[in-house]
Amino acid sequence: MNTFGNIFKLTTFGESHGEALGGVIDGMPSGIDVDMEFIQSELHRRRPGQGVLTTARNEADKVEILSGVFEGKTTGCPIGFIVRNADHHSSDYTNIKDVFRPSHADYTYQMKYGIRDYRGGGRASARETLCRVVGGAFAKLVLQQKGIVIEADILQVGSHKLHGTKEEQQAQIEEVVKAVRAENDSIGGIIGCTIKNCPVGLGEPVFGKLNAALGAAMLSINAVKGFDLGDGFEGVGLTGSQMNDEFYNDNGQIRMRTNHSGGIQGGISNGEEIVFRVLFKPVPTILREQHTVNMAGKEVAFTAKGRHDPCVLTRAVPIVEAMAAMTILDYVLLRQTNKL
Amino acid sequence: MNTFGNIFKLTTFGESHGEALGGVIDGMPSGIDVDMEFIQSELHRRRPGQGVLTTARNEADKVEILSGVFEGKTTGCPIGFIVRNADHHSSDYTNIKDVFRPSHADYTYQMKYGIRDYRGGGRASARETLCRVVGGAFAKLVLQQKGIVIEADILQVGSHKLHGTKEEQQAQIEEVVKAVRAENDSIGGIIGCTIKNCPVGLGEPVFGKLNAALGAAMLSINAVKGFDLGDGFEGVGLTGSQMNDEFYNDNGQIRMRTNHSGGIQGGISNGEEIVFRVLFKPVPTILREQHTVNMAGKEVAFTAKGRHDPCVLTRAVPIVEAMAAMTILDYVLLRQTNKL
Amino acid sequence: MNTFGNIFKLTTFGESHGEALGGVIDGMPSGIDVDMEFIQSELHRRRPGQGVLTTARNEADKVEILSGVFEGKTTGCPIGFIVRNADHHSSDYTNIKDVFRPSHADYTYQMKYGIRDYRGGGRASARETLCRVVGGAFAKLVLQQKGIVIEADILQVGSHKLHGTKEEQQAQIEEVVKAVRAENDSIGGIIGCTIKNCPVGLGEPVFGKLNAALGAAMLSINAVKGFDLGDGFEGVGLTGSQMNDEFYNDNGQIRMRTNHSGGIQGGISNGEEIVFRVLFKPVPTILREQHTVNMAGKEVAFTAKGRHDPCVLTRAVPIVEAMAAMTILDYVLLRQTNKL
Amino acid sequence: MNTFGNIFKLTTFGESHGEALGGVIDGMPSGIDVDMEFIQSELHRRRPGQGVLTTARNEADKVEILSGVFEGKTTGCPIGFIVRNADHHSSDYTNIKDVFRPSHADYTYQMKYGIRDYRGGGRASARETLCRVVGGAFAKLVLQQKGIVIEADILQVGSHKLHGTKEEQQAQIEEVVKAVRAENDSIGGIIGCTIKNCPVGLGEPVFGKLNAALGAAMLSINAVKGFDLGDGFEGVGLTGSQMNDEFYNDNGQIRMRTNHSGGIQGGISNGEEIVFRVLFKPVPTILREQHTVNMAGKEVAFTAKGRHDPCVLTRAVPIVEAMAAMTILDYVLLRQTNKL
Repeated sequence: MNTFGNIFKLTTFGESHGEALGGVIDGMPSGIDVDMEFIQSELHRRRPGQGVLTTARNEADKVEILSGVFEGKTTGCPIGFIVRNADHHSSDYTNIKDVFRPSHADYTYQMKYGIRDYRGGGRASARETLCRVVGGAFAKLVLQQKGIVIEADILQVGSHKLHGTKEEQQAQIEEVVKAVRAENDSIGGIIGCTIKNCPVGLGEPVFGKLNAALGAAMLSINAVKGFDLGDGFEGVGLTGSQMNDEFYNDNGQIRMRTNHSGGIQGGISNGEEIVFRVLFKPVPTILREQHTVNMAGKEVAFTAKGRHDPCVLTRAVPIVEAMAAMTILDYVLLRQTNKL
Repeated sequence: MNTFGNIFKLTTFGESHGEALGGVIDGMPSGIDVDMEFIQSELHRRRPGQGVLTTARNEADKVEILSGVFEGKTTGCPIGFIVRNADHHSSDYTNIKDVFRPSHADYTYQMKYGIRDYRGGGRASARETLCRVVGGAFAKLVLQQKGIVIEADILQVGSHKLHGTKEEQQAQIEEVVKAVRAENDSIGGIIGCTIKNCPVGLGEPVFGKLNAALGAAMLSINAVKGFDLGDGFEGVGLTGSQMNDEFYNDNGQIRMRTNHSGGIQGGISNGEEIVFRVLFKPVPTILREQHTVNMAGKEVAFTAKGRHDPCVLTRAVPIVEAMAAMTILDYVLLRQTNKL
Repeated sequence: MNTFGNIFKLTTFGESHGEALGGVIDGMPSGIDVDMEFIQSELHRRRPGQGVLTTARNEADKVEILSGVFEGKTTGCPIGFIVRNADHHSSDYTNIKDVFRPSHADYTYQMKYGIRDYRGGGRASARETLCRVVGGAFAKLVLQQKGIVIEADILQVGSHKLHGTKEEQQAQIEEVVKAVRAENDSIGGIIGCTIKNCPVGLGEPVFGKLNAALGAAMLSINAVKGFDLGDGFEGVGLTGSQMNDEFYNDNGQIRMRTNHSGGIQGGISNGEEIVFRVLFKPVPTILREQHTVNMAGKEVAFTAKGRHDPCVLTRAVPIVEAMAAMTILDYVLLRQTNKL
Repeated sequence: MNTFGNIFKLTTFGESHGEALGGVIDGMPSGIDVDMEFIQSELHRRRPGQGVLTTARNEADKVEILSGVFEGKTTGCPIGFIVRNADHHSSDYTNIKDVFRPSHADYTYQMKYGIRDYRGGGRASARETLCRVVGGAFAKLVLQQKGIVIEADILQVGSHKLHGTKEEQQAQIEEVVKAVRAENDSIGGIIGCTIKNCPVGLGEPVFGKLNAALGAAMLSINAVKGFDLGDGFEGVGLTGSQMNDEFYNDNGQIRMRTNHSGGIQGGISNGEEIVFRVLFKPVPTILREQHTVNMAGKEVAFTAKGRHDPCVLTRAVPIVEAMAAMTILDYVLLRQTNKL
């Protein structure tokens, strides 16, 4: 279950403090120019230390492509890649070795597997998303050729809905996060994502609906607790007559006057923008004392050490985009099998 | 993509007004007693005509089991089943033959496949969910043996949050729906679902997280537009210190004092109740004139005919349960492969 | 595991003496004319009672299409179908209820599932292949449009290699089978299959090689015990210089002068005819007393009753073709995902 | 399609002369001791340069485990691994850059993808099997705990069937290969494989028969052209009465007196030894001039350079075992899902 996708597939491996993380991209169309600078720049977007929001650790993640690219182009063969973990001092993690941190995956991994790599969250660490960003970058290289554009943005930090210009929004984010940090606490929020120029016809009924695939993609990201499409939960009060998207003829092109549906009907893209939201809970690591139990079942107090992001939203933006890009490319390729 | 699941798999077929709908359940454990009355009763729960909420059409859906059951027990072989469509007068549907109904799947199916069965929505009809309920009923027969209980309920109709006793809630639903019906309109809402006695350890990181699987299951249901887990979107304002679920030792059993996480951490069940919500949009069929285009691209007026549910929530409750039951059983079986 | 294929998928169900057998064809391209006479005629080809080779039982298998076809064309939606079991007198099978017939699947099914439908072999009966023939017939309808032709023939009955005209071959078959029947025995043999006009480029390295897919398809047929490609086992003595297929330019078309490889190189079709052989063991049901054990583990004598084919090769020819057709169509559709 | 398996899954990447080959093992049970020496020793078995049979190149392949192992034990998380290509002088391969070597995959890859890594066969090189041996070694670590033993041996080199002691067989192999080498030619042969102590009940009807899975596994290996089970093609002349395996009671254990079936009935293991054969064609690279065409379609002469194995059978033995081991473990794990 460490594989994502049907035709365009990403298989990942790696723990937070092991030798390396990496993955295999299978089903990449052949003959695509590989822009390594772009791929590396996508990775930089999810790096911590980009502002007040994130920790100052300098994670200079460098991706190494091991196969599937020849003379600058994809060959159709699987693309293996790794990202080394520069710095893995397991000694930093002795205080969490025997303790189940509240709302982390320590307990569930231990119970499921009977063993866990406790260093930095191991496989459950958000560091795993790095491989998704690499996969998403390759997917974007293909989607660009079709004019499909994927853009995610922070919509809400905690209960604060962002408004105004990009610059003003950034200031609002920093203000909220600064206040949370001062309390040694953490905060979640909502990221919105828009997919532009998506052709009509992506989505495979009935269990492979495009919204189901996007939902699964997003809900597989660490800390994601919700997903909605179009008007979503905020539109729950609307009636059918308010919510239906009427068709019209836009100079020979069938279009919809509104987009309450978020670009998908009956599980299939309708040519309008695909619009969805992703809910992130607050990161569970907070610099306060909490109650928990240890491996022996004894109740103990636990306080996290070190530097930790009080809010991961900024870093999560490229991850949301990456998962969306891989999903859309997978469905573009599936679409090619619907007819001879 | 008409197959759901990994080990316990349901493959379905059938259109609203074709000969029959049906499916194949693969991966059903052997030796399970098949309670046909229970299965049929689950089907009855999704039938229209059960009150003010739903249309008076009497859809007496009768499931016929064709294989996989011998002398009252499952054999481990695939269970084929069909439900005949009693009544398929295609003449009733001539008014929709050449028109794309707003916010239906008519347009997307036509564009994707170049052909569609226009009678009653064809494959995109909610009648397809009938097969899910059969699959879910078989899954429940297995889960019962493990003490796992799945219960869904309507939480909200439109913007009205239900409160009080079951009886009072029923009255509130009827009141809202009656008002909507009087306006020839339709309304959506939110269904909540709880899974009790779920063992620790269900869920397959990283792309097969249990919440991702449940989300995909729910988002594959017709008209579903959102999914959240635990505190969900309503808890977006909470900080980490408010949201973390602290562990304690409950007489030798590790438990959590709160359940903001909704029973899943790191994508793996933690032994607490699994709690999630499913958002349904209003059914798009309303008895009002709407603007749309026809197959030739010409703008036309369209008014639906016949009797239609203004609110599908009551009928959707067993469907939510069915999808949850199949997902959980699938993950129970997958769990059996984690260790020798 | 009752599903075959990746994009074009067949899921089957049904036991020899249950209510019905059937299946779901998923991934069928839309807009294909459905020639019901052709499909039914394919089914007739695998019917027993077509000559001296086969039993005189008249199995008038009639396929009923339940979905996925509208106004004579495929819609892209799943095609559900069933074939009723006309005649299921379980009383005929009481003598095998408690006995493990030698070289049948009685024992392995009982041990695997703890229960089995003992009537006529249940799920392990060759009657299951009926559904494959239906799936294959649909696949052939698509392949015809691409000019791809699949033809299987009996090459060898027991140790006798057929030679001469079709008519002479038929006489040879009848002679061998008559002799075997007189001994109350049974016989196997080899079926050869040729796929003509297959385009270059079918096959997905490295685990999805076309020969691996064809091999798995054939080895999934009841009683099949071997598969080889091109020169196969008979060419084991040849050296590289004898076996290599040299390329030449045939008026602008790259071709090979020989076809020792059987049309596949590196797991990918090379444009030459695909040629393979399938080995069938003798049917295990023979009208002689054999030693075996019963369910209680007691050693007992067993003699089969009724009429039984002493040789299934004639009936197996359309099954080999059906599995080949589904495999090739699946790979034609997969091929469409290799490039944008 | 670079993934093998259902529950225990190996995904591989890498070309002959790229940076590295590697893979991801997913579904490895947790808590298994990882014997790195054993894994490395399995890799050594497929190394060239082990005798007269193979080239003298010293390919010191060293596997690096990147994840999924913690403190010497598997964690249940995916095991990423790489093997660096020590030595990749692409200049050695300029003579094959524009030429399609007879019976190699050059032509089919070029036609399928429109691009290929021509250096040393790229993805189609047998060097890819290295990753299979790593995957198989991990599978063997698990199977050992269940007492399941997998052993492959060379049965036949060209038309010469080996006989006598191991030592005598080795001498026979060397003699045949020496003669072939003197002719600048190559030779194939047959490898037999036996799986001992396999429990009853492995195999998933109807398309997931154990023999179909083993066949697909073997036919996915480079140069494999045939597969048979039990008596196989050599038993084609036997009748049912000669071939049926009669049951008896061996001190309370149900056993078969003969094993013509090769340990599998109805696609499910029956507790006897699983016995199959794998046919390898001669390696297509021979040190003689051959006719072919170049990328422009022009007919040209081609002579391979460098050192090449005239016979890969010795190196193929561990690959056959590896594929068998992964298949059996996969089915052992699947077996755990058949019942609650």
